[in-house]
Amino acid sequence: MALNIRGFAAQSATTPLAPHSFERREPRADDVAIDILYCGVCHSDIHQARDEWGGSRYPMVPGHEIIGRVASVGAEVKGFKAGDLVGVGCMVDSCQHCEACHQGLEQYCVEGMVATYNSVDKKDGLPTFGGYSERIVVNDKFVLRIDPRLDAKAAAPLLCAGITTWSPLKHWNIGPGSKVAVVGLGGLGHMGLKFAKALGAEVTLFTRSPSKEDEARRLGADHVVLSTDEAQMKAVARRFDFILDTVPTRHDLNPYLATLALNGTHCLVGLVEPMDPPVHAANVIFGRRSIAGSLIGGIAETQEMLDFCAEHGIVSDVEMIRIQEINVAYERMLRSDVRYRFVIDLASLRDAA
Amino acid sequence: MALNIRGFAAQSATTPLAPHSFERREPRADDVAIDILYCGVCHSDIHQARDEWGGSRYPMVPGHEIIGRVASVGAEVKGFKAGDLVGVGCMVDSCQHCEACHQGLEQYCVEGMVATYNSVDKKDGLPTFGGYSERIVVNDKFVLRIDPRLDAKAAAPLLCAGITTWSPLKHWNIGPGSKVAVVGLGGLGHMGLKFAKALGAEVTLFTRSPSKEDEARRLGADHVVLSTDEAQMKAVARRFDFILDTVPTRHDLNPYLATLALNGTHCLVGLVEPMDPPVHAANVIFGRRSIAGSLIGGIAETQEMLDFCAEHGIVSDVEMIRIQEINVAYERMLRSDVRYRFVIDLASLRDAA
Repeated sequence: MALNIRGFAAQSATTPLAPHSFERREPRADDVAIDILYCGVCHSDIHQARDEWGGSRYPMVPGHEIIGRVASVGAEVKGFKAGDLVGVGCMVDSCQHCEACHQGLEQYCVEGMVATYNSVDKKDGLPTFGGYSERIVVNDKFVLRIDPRLDAKAAAPLLCAGITTWSPLKHWNIGPGSKVAVVGLGGLGHMGLKFAKALGAEVTLFTRSPSKEDEARRLGADHVVLSTDEAQMKAVARRFDFILDTVPTRHDLNPYLATLALNGTHCLVGLVEPMDPPVHAANVIFGRRSIAGSLIGGIAETQEMLDFCAEHGIVSDVEMIRIQEINVAYERMLRSDVRYRFVIDLASLRDAA
Repeated sequence: MALNIRGFAAQSATTPLAPHSFERREPRADDVAIDILYCGVCHSDIHQARDEWGGSRYPMVPGHEIIGRVASVGAEVKGFKAGDLVGVGCMVDSCQHCEACHQGLEQYCVEGMVATYNSVDKKDGLPTFGGYSERIVVNDKFVLRIDPRLDAKAAAPLLCAGITTWSPLKHWNIGPGSKVAVVGLGGLGHMGLKFAKALGAEVTLFTRSPSKEDEARRLGADHVVLSTDEAQMKAVARRFDFILDTVPTRHDLNPYLATLALNGTHCLVGLVEPMDPPVHAANVIFGRRSIAGSLIGGIAETQEMLDFCAEHGIVSDVEMIRIQEINVAYERMLRSDVRYRFVIDLASLRDAA
């Protein structure tokens, strides 16, 4: 007995999102059914709704920064009960038995993780649908606990923008004494600044907009460097241990590599385009530097990040929208006109009924 | 009272190497004067003699894989005495006080290392001249001990080809259990195979030439993968912890990146051209992979490598030449017609007199 659910969906790559009813599976013994309160809006929602990465499935219900309340749990679920505040991020399943899964790195599952939307459930072969909807049913291993101290609205983006920046900072051992630079001040970049600062690093923002300096300092930057200013770039040559590059479009890595210290790492997140103009090998050979990439984060580390956020009072800076405003929000995101993440209040779905 | 020295030099980017007399400094209190026995021939000798990297100084006496016997030592030199078998690699000085130098990573000296040739001495401002000559005078901190158990001729290439492959293998903790692939079977690649095997790794050679299989296995490869064969490449997807890429010309990294396991590193050595065609960011993001670079190695680790070689009976495979054959050797190197390193017997210099 599947459940009929209201949401917003793209019916094709070229149609705006619109009201859409669809079915969710009846919760299995290890499932948690969640009434969705809030859902953050990620750039990858736009990419996939518009089939910019290829392989999109329609109708598509986007959304993978989900905060909600447990409505019911399956018979075997021990960790959650009705009424709990919970979150769901970018994944809802993985093989659970490969080496990556055993290490708690389900995002790198050898069989491929099951994404929260635009993917296919492993058991019933049916499409997955995301958080632009009133309810979701998720395997309990992929449900996160949300500390009630967190502002639930502003916690939603932690499930993707948060973990995507947290995971590389932790993997590359950022802490007191580290010199970290963040490239780009958007949904991911503003979380990168907050986390790097909270972890004890000396934090620099690279930006092309002088106007962003005050904002950057408010969010945790100790220094702001205009990446278009050659003198400023020269002044930070060989300075950083770690560069967290959140820019989601094609850009030249070479000038940033020159600012890495010995053994430094330039880490790309959320970038799917080729490194063009090409990277000069000399920029990694001299200084034993690395260009690395990182994909969201595992479930255990997502929980660790959420708990750290509750402890340190960290959430995303958000602008709340009604779901009926989603197409306008997409256009504003493409103009970088948001500080720093849109979050849908799913209560608005009831107005559409 | 400077010393008059015979050698072979390039007088310009377009003239073949020819006999040339030049002066070496009178040994300082911390200098070692070395009678050169053998000098390996490195690809970078050709690049610099022909000014392919820019900034070449003429006349240029190339050569930075030097084996010789100590002729005399300055008053303050304690570690060496006349008659000792010694080596000199790519560097003859560095600032000695930056963080890199303090870590024994003189090759990454913030002020820039002083190269064995085509560089400028820090104290007298005079050009440095390399190992295609009868004698060299070097600061004792940059002189290496050569164990008499080593075949001195075949040890010469350890000073550049050896340390360039050893250093990244050690830095990335290659040992028993590691799965290592080497790209390219030349002067560097053949040392990479020997070292990776001796360190206990499971070793694969990537090559475009099926004819190299037997040689690769003789040199330590457990497996050989034809990089031009899509099926063979697919069969090793996500397999390697570390790829040591010794190819000195422009090539596509993308197919190799796909063969890296979770957290794997593709390390470039000796490549100075841009990464063209461009690298797809997805190839590092999925699998948290890295593209890194590594430059020769520090003095302490060069000594460690030489001692390891003496212990494990490792030397380079060499073809001996007379110095009068150097221009022919360059042409053969450009056709990859050498197994695997030319070494000049400097006794031949006396014939030219």
